[in-house]
Amino acid sequence: MPFVSIRLAGAATREQKAAIVADVTTSLVTRLGKNPAAVQIVIEEVSTENYGAGGQLLADRDAPVAKGDAHADPRQ
Amino acid sequence: MPFVSIRLAGAATREQKAAIVADVTTSLVTRLGKNPAAVQIVIEEVSTENYGAGGQLLADRDAPVAKGDAHADPRQ
Amino acid sequence: MPFVSIRLAGAATREQKAAIVADVTTSLVTRLGKNPAAVQIVIEEVSTENYGAGGQLLADRDAPVAKGDAHADPRQ
Amino acid sequence: MPFVSIRLAGAATREQKAAIVADVTTSLVTRLGKNPAAVQIVIEEVSTENYGAGGQLLADRDAPVAKGDAHADPRQ
Amino acid sequence: MPFVSIRLAGAATREQKAAIVADVTTSLVTRLGKNPAAVQIVIEEVSTENYGAGGQLLADRDAPVAKGDAHADPRQ
Amino acid sequence: MPFVSIRLAGAATREQKAAIVADVTTSLVTRLGKNPAAVQIVIEEVSTENYGAGGQLLADRDAPVAKGDAHADPRQ
Repeated sequence: MPFVSIRLAGAATREQKAAIVADVTTSLVTRLGKNPAAVQIVIEEVSTENYGAGGQLLADRDAPVAKGDAHADPRQ
Repeated sequence: MPFVSIRLAGAATREQKAAIVADVTTSLVTRLGKNPAAVQIVIEEVSTENYGAGGQLLADRDAPVAKGDAHADPRQ
Repeated sequence: MPFVSIRLAGAATREQKAAIVADVTTSLVTRLGKNPAAVQIVIEEVSTENYGAGGQLLADRDAPVAKGDAHADPRQ
Repeated sequence: MPFVSIRLAGAATREQKAAIVADVTTSLVTRLGKNPAAVQIVIEEVSTENYGAGGQLLADRDAPVAKGDAHADPRQ
Repeated sequence: MPFVSIRLAGAATREQKAAIVADVTTSLVTRLGKNPAAVQIVIEEVSTENYGAGGQLLADRDAPVAKGDAHADPRQ
Repeated sequence: MPFVSIRLAGAATREQKAAIVADVTTSLVTRLGKNPAAVQIVIEEVSTENYGAGGQLLADRDAPVAKGDAHADPRQ
């Protein structure tokens, strides 16, 4: 009876989502012996204006920076 | 103080959502003695392209199948 | 394929949890025509030390108050 | 490694969301000594047709009431 | 920045959980090009007294049935 | 009506949790004009055996490493 929620920043294609659903189901079936029919997975594609990391929205972090402000992101 | 999250595959009408909110609130009030004003419920209508079960997207599972492939879905 | 998550402040008995599962499943079957076998429900019993409302932990809000401090709770 | 999910009834501006992400990250860094780069926050703006409280959808609760039906909302 | 929540009915060993975390991270990195360091995964092991499916708690569904009541579970 | 879920790796003291609840409530009240009484917050303290990042359980990542294996963690 596993239920899986996956929140992504940004969008994914239908093919990518299908592949992730297949991969995660296979993992739970293989590792835990779960019945594949009972595995439910929801993928939420979250706008970068609604996803924060490091104290700021991803939409702001990814925004073009003014010249002279070309600092490297220490997380990447 | 209960908080309830309901994820549905596909859409529901406003009337359906209102009825579910009323039903679930009544259950928590009746079964647990909770204050109805404190019961919060969120209903998420998830696209069948973002909801997987049995290892595939519901959108793919529900897709028309080629002739000669009319197998019954064992889960239904 | 609905998935329902219910977070409660404090504990519930097994009988209460069984009744809530039955009630919520019936609601989704009746209102939306869902297959009952596909309805998954998780009930999380959250300690009042981990549940906040009105800006404070429920465990602190429910604590005995010193005499002379018998203010009414403005939220109720 | 904290992960924070915030569900709001209704919309927020990008500036409001950026401010909330900054506030919540600061709280977790200050109170728990977490690495700010590891704090992930998702803000979900939920339609009032999908958010229930007090047994009804917020969209219905906020609806204009017919004259002669000007009851006070006991929750406020 | 993906965040993944996995709710299991019952327990898993540490080795099983480590394998699932590795599998799911690999899927998101391979399918979406995500940075593995940014993938966060939480596994919740839910008691069968707190997990419902088909309208009843799993703990009740799995309970020994009285003789003469040996119906097959249509979901399996 | 905001509902906030916070998942932490490891434990927090009651005082830390009370401070986080106060901080987050203040943020939502200040930034969005929400009624503080309607802000619900749940803090989940997740075992490092149930929290993965970078493809492994935090419990494994934090484990003492054999001498000669003193690699720096590239994520920090």
